[in-house]
Amino acid sequence: MTERMREPSGQTVGAGALLTILRHGQARTRAELVQLTGLARSTVSQRLDALLDQRWIVPAEEAISSGGRPAIAFAFNRNARLVLAADLGATHARLAVTDLASTVLVERAFDLAIDRGPEETLGWLVATFREMLAEIGHSVAEVCGVGLGLPGPVEHASGRPVNPPIMPGWDAFPVPDWLGARLGAPVLVDNDVNIMALGEHWAVRPETDHLIFVKVGTGIGCGIITERHLHRGAQGAAGDIGHIRVTSADDVVCRCGNVGCLEAVAGGAAMAVRLRQAGETAENSRDVVRLVRAGNTQAVQLIRQAGREIGDVLASIVNFFNPGVIVIGGDVAEAGEHILAGVREVIYSRSLPLATQHLGIRASVLGDRAGVVGAAVMVIEHVLAPEAVDLSVAG
Amino acid sequence: MTERMREPSGQTVGAGALLTILRHGQARTRAELVQLTGLARSTVSQRLDALLDQRWIVPAEEAISSGGRPAIAFAFNRNARLVLAADLGATHARLAVTDLASTVLVERAFDLAIDRGPEETLGWLVATFREMLAEIGHSVAEVCGVGLGLPGPVEHASGRPVNPPIMPGWDAFPVPDWLGARLGAPVLVDNDVNIMALGEHWAVRPETDHLIFVKVGTGIGCGIITERHLHRGAQGAAGDIGHIRVTSADDVVCRCGNVGCLEAVAGGAAMAVRLRQAGETAENSRDVVRLVRAGNTQAVQLIRQAGREIGDVLASIVNFFNPGVIVIGGDVAEAGEHILAGVREVIYSRSLPLATQHLGIRASVLGDRAGVVGAAVMVIEHVLAPEAVDLSVAG
Repeated sequence: MTERMREPSGQTVGAGALLTILRHGQARTRAELVQLTGLARSTVSQRLDALLDQRWIVPAEEAISSGGRPAIAFAFNRNARLVLAADLGATHARLAVTDLASTVLVERAFDLAIDRGPEETLGWLVATFREMLAEIGHSVAEVCGVGLGLPGPVEHASGRPVNPPIMPGWDAFPVPDWLGARLGAPVLVDNDVNIMALGEHWAVRPETDHLIFVKVGTGIGCGIITERHLHRGAQGAAGDIGHIRVTSADDVVCRCGNVGCLEAVAGGAAMAVRLRQAGETAENSRDVVRLVRAGNTQAVQLIRQAGREIGDVLASIVNFFNPGVIVIGGDVAEAGEHILAGVREVIYSRSLPLATQHLGIRASVLGDRAGVVGAAVMVIEHVLAPEAVDLSVAG
Repeated sequence: MTERMREPSGQTVGAGALLTILRHGQARTRAELVQLTGLARSTVSQRLDALLDQRWIVPAEEAISSGGRPAIAFAFNRNARLVLAADLGATHARLAVTDLASTVLVERAFDLAIDRGPEETLGWLVATFREMLAEIGHSVAEVCGVGLGLPGPVEHASGRPVNPPIMPGWDAFPVPDWLGARLGAPVLVDNDVNIMALGEHWAVRPETDHLIFVKVGTGIGCGIITERHLHRGAQGAAGDIGHIRVTSADDVVCRCGNVGCLEAVAGGAAMAVRLRQAGETAENSRDVVRLVRAGNTQAVQLIRQAGREIGDVLASIVNFFNPGVIVIGGDVAEAGEHILAGVREVIYSRSLPLATQHLGIRASVLGDRAGVVGAAVMVIEHVLAPEAVDLSVAG
């Protein structure tokens, strides 16, 4: 084949398309695949051979007899490759090795200062991934891709951070090249909130078409799923709700230089500052949660009010975007119902009835694992995309 | 074929898929289509015959010689069917008959009171469409679909209005059944702002992935294009920005019962009220535009401030959604640069630099034709969707 359709509506039935059929369904025989695709039998055979050669598929255990000689069914091989996934936050990191179904094979969490710069941080990341692979008896040669979430804006196409405010030294650093050269696999980088949204959607709510995942941690941001896909926006900047102005806070100056930003009143860092001013010991968002859990009245009031401020911003977004579900995640969300109650209170009083009648407002189910699951999903969807597999087989 | 792939990633190559290839590209020979799709030659022939039978395709004028006997190329037939398109507003209507490339063949504009109820309005619509068809020498038998925009929320799947505030008697009225029975073709109904967004995107900015079309008329709403498709949201309620609260107007009661809604301060009806209070003659949004064009200071100040209020809401939406282009349309937008200036002023000062660096904020190019063009596009995309054509051929 010298020419191939490239349009979304185009209908190439390459090796990758056969793999997609097997990956999302049961094992299929050659005859079934011929019938499903309308392709010539010889074409199907040729593509199945290529997929078998590269171990993307395996003969399924049961052979199906169709009258004459038994026909072999082929199934997707989730163990064909490994995925490395990392979720790096401002102060802590979570790393995982997964199979091609995003199942975590080994996982570790660390304290980590992202402001030590890219080379030190990524060097540590490579060494730790190697240790983790060794621990489960595998090698870097089996890795098909690396997924990485970073706590700042990332140009998704190039994988480079774009003026990340809390990551000195990382601006425009070529993360994929640097990591790829050391790990020998394609590297995908995205904003940490985007991968959390992807993970939560994939693992918990795959049937929801339109979902917003709000991370309330040191800062505030959201990941947007529309038509079951991540919406990154024109510059990859979508979801940056932390700097939307809230009505009640026109006198608060934000680290971005503007006044009245949501993050400057309802983010974990801002709440910790207020608690310190009130004489409490609170370094960061985790301390805020600790105080809330201990029943500290000031902290409970503060987090409830933060929920209302976040709800105020989300009420507008509900009118605009009409999501099916809003998921609240991140460190601060672990303080439980207090924050959800504030969010619900404002959204249900401010948003339009049609947009809220079936709206779910829920706490994250994956919690602090959402990021690594999402990073793995991002890699798998990329590596196993029909056109990607076509290239690796045909090219 | 007894079974067919239904997944988006699935790769059915039915008659509809062949039609899609021809529709979005040049004329193709049978051999080229075999090569492009990987289908068996006999399958391609069978499907081309079905498409020729139904006049969806025609032999292209030039026959391409490939050494031996000349091969016939087949092309999409944009004149195979007609589309009826209507954009009904609160007080006026625009009707058009188009071909399958959304080219308007005949068009008319009317004053119309939508509050006279569905049967009277739709009865008039049917009679007028019949007159327009007769005028160009065609009949209802050639119509493949009807597209209709209504000034209120519509459940897109059923085509029924959902508690439309300015359309008494229309709630849950089965518009597609009623019209379909009289026009003998499938009927698609959507919110007027959605079809305007579709029309402007399709005709003016087809290469923009993420676009927001803001209609500023009697009320205020927006249509959202993401990944070049209309985003309707979980309940079809997306884009209802007219009832987002604006900071400056906490004392203004809106017709929705809430206070401080954008529409209650920056909509055409609200501005007309304020101008009347100031002693001017202003019945509706068109009168506001007339006064602005006449240089009335009060009206100019009012519309500039309305632009700022709209900009305030859009600034948050830009942070959240990161569109590539914002288009301002609707009656009031015809007042020109005054409203755009206000919108730009606030968005560029409030939204994040990454989200605004390549953001275009533009006046609608199609103006009051955006709706009928979009209604036609909605019908064409539905009728010519690969699976729809598959059904009409195979079923």
